[in-house]
Amino acid sequence: MKHLILIQCDDRVGLVYWITKILSDNNLNITAMREFVDEAAGRFFTRIECTGELPAADVLHQELDRHLPPGASVIINPKKEKKIAVLVTKEHHCLGDMLVRHIFSTLNAQVCCVIGNYDDLSNFTQRFDIPFYHISHLEKAREDFESEIISVVNSYRPDYLVLAKFMRILSPAFIAAFPSQIINIHHSFLPAFIGANPYRKAFERGVKLIGATAHFVTNDLDEGPIIEQQTITVDHTFGVADMITSGREIEKAVLSKAMQLVFEDRVFISGNKTIVFE
Amino acid sequence: MKHLILIQCDDRVGLVYWITKILSDNNLNITAMREFVDEAAGRFFTRIECTGELPAADVLHQELDRHLPPGASVIINPKKEKKIAVLVTKEHHCLGDMLVRHIFSTLNAQVCCVIGNYDDLSNFTQRFDIPFYHISHLEKAREDFESEIISVVNSYRPDYLVLAKFMRILSPAFIAAFPSQIINIHHSFLPAFIGANPYRKAFERGVKLIGATAHFVTNDLDEGPIIEQQTITVDHTFGVADMITSGREIEKAVLSKAMQLVFEDRVFISGNKTIVFE
Amino acid sequence: MKHLILIQCDDRVGLVYWITKILSDNNLNITAMREFVDEAAGRFFTRIECTGELPAADVLHQELDRHLPPGASVIINPKKEKKIAVLVTKEHHCLGDMLVRHIFSTLNAQVCCVIGNYDDLSNFTQRFDIPFYHISHLEKAREDFESEIISVVNSYRPDYLVLAKFMRILSPAFIAAFPSQIINIHHSFLPAFIGANPYRKAFERGVKLIGATAHFVTNDLDEGPIIEQQTITVDHTFGVADMITSGREIEKAVLSKAMQLVFEDRVFISGNKTIVFE
Amino acid sequence: MKHLILIQCDDRVGLVYWITKILSDNNLNITAMREFVDEAAGRFFTRIECTGELPAADVLHQELDRHLPPGASVIINPKKEKKIAVLVTKEHHCLGDMLVRHIFSTLNAQVCCVIGNYDDLSNFTQRFDIPFYHISHLEKAREDFESEIISVVNSYRPDYLVLAKFMRILSPAFIAAFPSQIINIHHSFLPAFIGANPYRKAFERGVKLIGATAHFVTNDLDEGPIIEQQTITVDHTFGVADMITSGREIEKAVLSKAMQLVFEDRVFISGNKTIVFE
Repeated sequence: MKHLILIQCDDRVGLVYWITKILSDNNLNITAMREFVDEAAGRFFTRIECTGELPAADVLHQELDRHLPPGASVIINPKKEKKIAVLVTKEHHCLGDMLVRHIFSTLNAQVCCVIGNYDDLSNFTQRFDIPFYHISHLEKAREDFESEIISVVNSYRPDYLVLAKFMRILSPAFIAAFPSQIINIHHSFLPAFIGANPYRKAFERGVKLIGATAHFVTNDLDEGPIIEQQTITVDHTFGVADMITSGREIEKAVLSKAMQLVFEDRVFISGNKTIVFE
Repeated sequence: MKHLILIQCDDRVGLVYWITKILSDNNLNITAMREFVDEAAGRFFTRIECTGELPAADVLHQELDRHLPPGASVIINPKKEKKIAVLVTKEHHCLGDMLVRHIFSTLNAQVCCVIGNYDDLSNFTQRFDIPFYHISHLEKAREDFESEIISVVNSYRPDYLVLAKFMRILSPAFIAAFPSQIINIHHSFLPAFIGANPYRKAFERGVKLIGATAHFVTNDLDEGPIIEQQTITVDHTFGVADMITSGREIEKAVLSKAMQLVFEDRVFISGNKTIVFE
Repeated sequence: MKHLILIQCDDRVGLVYWITKILSDNNLNITAMREFVDEAAGRFFTRIECTGELPAADVLHQELDRHLPPGASVIINPKKEKKIAVLVTKEHHCLGDMLVRHIFSTLNAQVCCVIGNYDDLSNFTQRFDIPFYHISHLEKAREDFESEIISVVNSYRPDYLVLAKFMRILSPAFIAAFPSQIINIHHSFLPAFIGANPYRKAFERGVKLIGATAHFVTNDLDEGPIIEQQTITVDHTFGVADMITSGREIEKAVLSKAMQLVFEDRVFISGNKTIVFE
Repeated sequence: MKHLILIQCDDRVGLVYWITKILSDNNLNITAMREFVDEAAGRFFTRIECTGELPAADVLHQELDRHLPPGASVIINPKKEKKIAVLVTKEHHCLGDMLVRHIFSTLNAQVCCVIGNYDDLSNFTQRFDIPFYHISHLEKAREDFESEIISVVNSYRPDYLVLAKFMRILSPAFIAAFPSQIINIHHSFLPAFIGANPYRKAFERGVKLIGATAHFVTNDLDEGPIIEQQTITVDHTFGVADMITSGREIEKAVLSKAMQLVFEDRVFISGNKTIVFE
C-alpha cells in the first residue's frame, strides 16, 4: 500500500535521520522524499511517499510526534480527492477547464458547487451536473453578500475555495473564515500590475510579456503566497483586447497547474511564500 | 544593391500605397516590409528592405517628403555599424558577452570605449584592445561625475550608450544629452521591482519567475520604453544569490537581443512604447 | 466595414505596389498587411485587413486578377466562422478544450459533429448538444471504416476536419478527399518520435523536453506542413505516464493555437511548409 | 565545514535510512539531499550536502561501504574546480562564453587548453592567456589526428573534454579513452536532426522551433545521455542562416547550463540517461 506523509516543524539537526529511522523501524519503504529548510523562518518541511503496511492506530503519528520538535504538524495520508467550491463572475475559460477535468476525474478534486455573482455561467455549469448558485452582489452590503456565499459554501464543507476569475474583493473576515484554503488566479505577473485592469496597465506600460499568477489569498490584496506563475510574449500589435485573449490561455494553465500541485499535497506555506515539491 | 528605408509620420489613408508607388516608380523592389499604426498616438511606422539602384542625390527623399504628412521622418540607409560606448560598474557578464560579439563582428556595432565607475573590468576590457576609462563617482558631485563621463563619451561620438549593469542613477540632464540613445538592462521584469535590489525583493515576495528588461532610458527611473523582456523559472530553493546567478543569464540574453534589434534599426519609439519589427 | 483579403501567386516585382494601388483606387484603407515571399518556391503571399466600402459585384476581384500573375489565388472576405468535424478516439483533453470554446463562441469555428472510433466521448459530447457518431474500426476493412466516416462528414460539409487525438492512420484516399483540410495534433516535437508511442520513445531516449506539433495531414505519416509546435521541460523523475499527463497540456495548447491561426485565415501552405501571419 | 557526498548503488529497502543514520552518527548535518531510484535499472542515486567535521581517515567511506550494497560508488568531496580541455573548429560563440566565465571564475572549471582543427580561434583564445593547439585533421589519417589530440589532452589530465562546436566525428577508440568525460553540444533538439546540417534539415522540414542539446558522448553518434535541452521559436521568415544565428544563442546557453550542472556534480549517468539533481 502507498502512503503519503507530510511534516512541517521547527528545524533542528537530524530530522531526516529520525524520520527515516521511524519509517524504517515500521517497515515502510520510502519511494520518494523531498525536504526543504526555510532558513530565514527556521522551518523544516518534508513530503514522503512510501509503501508498506501502516502500524495499528496512531502509532506512527505518536512516534513521529515524540521525536519531532514541539508543535510539529504531521499528516499521514491526507484526503486524496479534495472537495472544492468555485467562485466565478462572467469569464468562462478557467471554469470550463476545471469542469472538463472534473468530469474526467483528472482534477484530483471534486467540484461540489459553483457560485457566481452573475448568472452568466449557470447553464454551462449545469451541463456538468454541478449545482450553480447565483448570489448577486448588487444592492446589498458586502457583509450580506459574503455571508450568503459562506452559507452556501458551508453547506458543502469544501477543502478549498477556488476563485476562477471572481472579480469581487473579499473582506478580511471572509478570508479569515477559510485560512490557507482560498486559491486565486490573478491576471498579471505579480507583483506587477496589482489590482484592477492589469491588462490595460500592461498595455499602457508597453510590456513585452504578460503573465498570470496563482496564489493563496490573504488579507492583503494580491499579496498572498504565490503558487505558480507563467508569462507569454506580446508585442506592439497587441491591444488590450488581444492581451486579454492571450492572457486567458495562461490564466487557465497557471490555475490548473496550481490546483494540481495543491490538490496533490505538494504545496506548503511558509510565511508569505510557498514551498512546492513538484 | 540592398537598401533600408525607415519612415514614421502621422497616420493617414493611403500611406502604404504612396510609399510603395514611389519605390516602384523608382524601380526599387520591396523584399520585406513591415508597417504599424499606433492608433492611440495616430502615428504610422514602416521599415522597408528593398533592392535596386537609388536615384541620384536626394530625389527619393524629396519624393517621399512631398507625399507624406508634414513632419515625417524618413531615413534612407541608416549607418550600418553603430558606434557604442558602454558604461559598467563591477559585473562582467553583460560586458563579456558584448565584447566577444564585438571582436567577432556579430554585435552589429563597434564598442568604442568602456567607462566604469570602478576599475574592476579594466583588465578584462583591455584584453579586447578597447579603451577603458575609470571614472569614479566617489568624493565628487554627481554633476562632476557625469560631466567627466560626457566628456569621454563625446570624444567618441557614439550612436548609443549601453548601460551594461551600470549601477548609478543618471540625472535628467545627462539623459537629456542623449535622447533615445541610452539603452539599459534592468534586472527584473519591469514594472515589478523597480529600483534597487530587485532580486532581494523578488526573493522576499516569493515569486516563481524572475525577469530582465532592456529599455531606453528616460527621466523616470526604470520607466522608459521597453525593448525586450524575458523571464525564467525559480523555486523555493533559490536564495537571493541563486537568483542573481540565474538572473545574469537572462540579463545577458535580453540585453543582447535588445541591442541586436536596435542596431539593426528594427525598433521605433512611440511615446513610452517601442514598436519592434523583428 | 472591415474586409479581409488573402492573395497568393507567383512572385514578381511590384506586387505590393499593384495590390495597394488597387485597394487605394477603390477607397479601401489598409489597417494591417502582412506579406512574405517564399524565395525557394518563388511564391508571394499576403494577408490584408482593410476598411471601406467594397465595389459592386466582383470588380475588386477582377482588377486584382488583371494585375496579378496568371494563376493567382485571391480570396476576399473568406467565410468568418468555419465549420469543423472532429475525429477522436478515447482521450478527452483536446476535445474538451474545443467544445468549451465552441459553446462560448471563442473557437472561431462551429463544431458540427464529433466522430469517435470508440464511444468513450459520446456522453461528454452530448453535454454540449453536439451530435456524436460512433464509427468503430473493429471487424471491418479500413476502406469501409473510412467511407463510413466520409459519409458522415459529407453530410455536414465542414471546412476542416480536426483529428483531436484520433489514433487511427488514415489512408491516402481519405486524405486526398480533404486536401489541406485535415489538421492533426501529434504528441511529439516532430520530426522527433514520428509514429506510435512517442512518449515511450521520449522516455527511453531520456530527453529533457517533450513537445507537441499541430500540422496539416498529407499522405506521409506525420510529415505534413507544421502549423505550431511547443515544448515543455521534463526530467529524470518523469515516467511515461507523467510525460503523457504533462504532454496533454501542450497538445491542448498547440492544437488550440493552430486552430485559432487557421480559422482566422492566418495560415498559408507553401509546399510542405506553412506561412503563419500571426 | 561543508561537504558533498555522491552515492550510487543497486537499489534496496532502507538506503536513505542507513545513509542518514551514518551521517547522523558522525555528527554530520544534512542541509540538502536529493535521491532518485531508476526503477527500470534498479539503481539508487543520491547527492547530499552536509555540514560538520568529517571523521578521521576513511572512516565515513568505510562505514558507508559496509552498509551499502556491494559495488556501491561513494564519492566524498569530489574535486571542486574541474579541469577541462576544449575542442573547437571555427565557431566562436560557445568558446567565447566559456572563456569569459573561466576568466571570472564562474565556470566552476579551469580551462587548461583549447584544441582546434582550424586555427581560427587561436588569437581569441590567447587573449585569455590559455594555450591553443592547432591540430589539423587535413592530410592525415583520423587515427593520427586523434592521437595528436590525445597526446595534448593527456599532458593536462583534464577531468572533462568539452566539444564546443567541434565538427569532426570522433572514433570509438577516442571516446573509449575518456569514458563519461566528453560533453558535446549538438545544434538540434535531439533526436530530431541527428548528424550533419541540422539547421538545413530543420529549415527544409519547416519546423516552428529549433533546439540545442548537450549530451555525454558515447560510441553512437548523437545518441549519448542527454544533459540539457532547450528550444526557441522560429517562423517562416527564418532562412537557414537566420536559424544558425538564433540557434547559437541556445547552443551557448544549453552548453553553459550543462557544464554548470556537471561541474557542480549534479549529474549522474544511468545507462543512456542522466539524472540531474538541480
